[in-house]
Amino acid sequence: MIYKLYENLSKEQLKGEYLTLKKEYESFKNLNLKLDMSRGKPCEEQLNLSLNMLKDIDINHFTKTKQGQDPRNYGLLSGTLEAKQFFSNILNVPTEKIIVGDGSSLSLMFDYISMATNFGLLGSTPWNKLEEVKFLCPCPGYDRHFAICELFNIKMINININQNGPDVNQIKELVEKDHSVKGIWCVPKYSNPTGITYKNEIVTALAKLKPAAKDFRIFWDNAYAIHHLSQQHDELLNIFEECEKYNTQNMVVEFTSTAKITFAGSGISAIAASEENIKDILNIMSKRIICFNKINQILHATFFNTTEKLEKHMQNHAKIIKPKFDLILNKFEKELKPLKIANWSRPNGGYFISFNALNGCAKRIYELCKESGVTLTSPGATYPYSKDPKDSNIRIAPTYPSIEDLKIASSIFCICVKLATIEKLL
Amino acid sequence: MIYKLYENLSKEQLKGEYLTLKKEYESFKNLNLKLDMSRGKPCEEQLNLSLNMLKDIDINHFTKTKQGQDPRNYGLLSGTLEAKQFFSNILNVPTEKIIVGDGSSLSLMFDYISMATNFGLLGSTPWNKLEEVKFLCPCPGYDRHFAICELFNIKMINININQNGPDVNQIKELVEKDHSVKGIWCVPKYSNPTGITYKNEIVTALAKLKPAAKDFRIFWDNAYAIHHLSQQHDELLNIFEECEKYNTQNMVVEFTSTAKITFAGSGISAIAASEENIKDILNIMSKRIICFNKINQILHATFFNTTEKLEKHMQNHAKIIKPKFDLILNKFEKELKPLKIANWSRPNGGYFISFNALNGCAKRIYELCKESGVTLTSPGATYPYSKDPKDSNIRIAPTYPSIEDLKIASSIFCICVKLATIEKLL
Repeated sequence: MIYKLYENLSKEQLKGEYLTLKKEYESFKNLNLKLDMSRGKPCEEQLNLSLNMLKDIDINHFTKTKQGQDPRNYGLLSGTLEAKQFFSNILNVPTEKIIVGDGSSLSLMFDYISMATNFGLLGSTPWNKLEEVKFLCPCPGYDRHFAICELFNIKMINININQNGPDVNQIKELVEKDHSVKGIWCVPKYSNPTGITYKNEIVTALAKLKPAAKDFRIFWDNAYAIHHLSQQHDELLNIFEECEKYNTQNMVVEFTSTAKITFAGSGISAIAASEENIKDILNIMSKRIICFNKINQILHATFFNTTEKLEKHMQNHAKIIKPKFDLILNKFEKELKPLKIANWSRPNGGYFISFNALNGCAKRIYELCKESGVTLTSPGATYPYSKDPKDSNIRIAPTYPSIEDLKIASSIFCICVKLATIEKLL
Repeated sequence: MIYKLYENLSKEQLKGEYLTLKKEYESFKNLNLKLDMSRGKPCEEQLNLSLNMLKDIDINHFTKTKQGQDPRNYGLLSGTLEAKQFFSNILNVPTEKIIVGDGSSLSLMFDYISMATNFGLLGSTPWNKLEEVKFLCPCPGYDRHFAICELFNIKMINININQNGPDVNQIKELVEKDHSVKGIWCVPKYSNPTGITYKNEIVTALAKLKPAAKDFRIFWDNAYAIHHLSQQHDELLNIFEECEKYNTQNMVVEFTSTAKITFAGSGISAIAASEENIKDILNIMSKRIICFNKINQILHATFFNTTEKLEKHMQNHAKIIKPKFDLILNKFEKELKPLKIANWSRPNGGYFISFNALNGCAKRIYELCKESGVTLTSPGATYPYSKDPKDSNIRIAPTYPSIEDLKIASSIFCICVKLATIEKLL
């Protein structure tokens, strides 16, 4: 098949192409499919990798922690040492700077913003007493981050993001001059959705920031810290070590979880922060909860009792999902690349492919896909206020559907991209 | 031994009695004990009752819920049907009106207050936009409830509580006239710490309230719903059924958990509320968390797959802790009753004995106990702002220590009560 660049086609030729594609589209539509590439969910085979965590459990692990406490009873608000060590290995942060929470790291972020809003951070004025609070949002980014800001009426400012990370000049300008800028959302490794990992100089530049607001915080959502897709791992600089050089340790709060390591929703999560911030958080947290689920902490720490087990486990995840990424990427390579009507990410890890259509086409692609039974993440979702200024970005989540489903879904997607592009050109 | 009423003794006789007691006290003090009757914690034998929950698990339960969802993946924010049914049986509330959370019901209460503060309830003005927010606090009550109010700067008003429940006239007066009264804390069954269960007429009177504030809520903390100590169960009227009669269903939000059924901190919890309130809560909750730990929900629902199992399980708890309550109560009966220097509760369930010393003696009893190695709940803790106006109430938690430890601790406690009383009288 010889691809003709749409831009070189006459209107008539484009219309012809459109009608051919539309027929193909209709034939898929008649299949009444129900395919979902909208959310970063693990698939059943991935979940099965952790099922042995619940099998053949040595009950003795639950009656006593390494430090001699009974994990079945109240106590240990900041978590068991075993679970802290587990996260310490992943994040390369000492256990004293870690709090282990329940399944959701999102809720830890939400609660930290809620704490800042109601009570203030390290003695600063609570944000609800301020005229305006702003957050910087490198985008495309994670929709649930933006939804929290929107709920708390925090004004979001778009920050450009490229292959190296977010635009640090733009960030520096805003953070260092405007004291109402209180936070920035970062997914620094295998970023949601772009898949990029912040380059060393970006991490350093962030650690060197001199914020106008004492209570400015970098929300370092390291959700995909060890979620490599291939042997070719991205490396992320340890931001806390950088912060130590510039005495800005209180500026960063890091989050992670095992949602995509063990069970989505039933894993364990963690906050890593300076000892001052940890103390500040525990002070408020202690009014909310006596302790988190330590049985689950022990389950996780026992299942991953060596670094090798965890590494092997993550390799097994990759074995399952890498072919899904490849399938989609190969399809794009074959169907879309020759037409030069879109570009997309080729991530070394994480859960997403970030797809950029011709400007003004994303919503239409979403609609066309939806009508033919393929659910995508809502267009705009990767931007604050669900407003993609270019109406171009689409987040594709290949992990959950089966290979068979992905084959069909990606075919339909490519047809929809072509249709929407031609509609735009006509 | 013939007891002489202290009030009939001369100062000299009292001094003599004091010196005798002090010698006994010092001999205990020299033992360097470390006993704790401060918190309502289950003991190891109680925790062992649930250990089989984690043993011989049929893995198939975790791969599919009754409704066919995979509980290991994201989804089901309001909980699995299995877990809702579990709580539905306990609370006698339909599953549609239940959200199942993680281990802590306290955090559900905290989050509901946080939600009201930041975003408002059912469209009402957020509490942080109001001049003043007040809560009614039947007391003695639960210290952690009061700590939440204090943190959120909610003004607490003491409400008297007697054998029948809180003073509904006082409540009615305040709730129906003052629109800044936004809530009341109730532990309606085997109350913390008084052990009383609200009488039917009290529950009805609460359900009939016509609050000045639309967003007034009864926080119905039914923590001890099935935590009977004997065959003689207290019965609590279903407040939601009462509310239906008076069309006040939105006024009540009920909370409970398995903290003292299975594992303290690693159990599951629930909110029960009107469908409108449930929708309101889920709306905010969905921004905070994708879903709670459904593996743990399945563990619980599977372990208690019949009502009989749960009943038997609670009887086993009672078998372990009833002797501890009896030991303390018998000691009080023998040592303190003849002196008429204190009174105390004899609860049919729950986790506490509420002890009322001679006015002005509680702090001193606490100190004396502390010096001799017996930790009690901080005096005043059972009152808002930790201020017991009479300095009289002490909450005794007999469940955690061993029978042997309780024998010593209760002996020391009785001596300290006598010493503090004589000091007061002298």
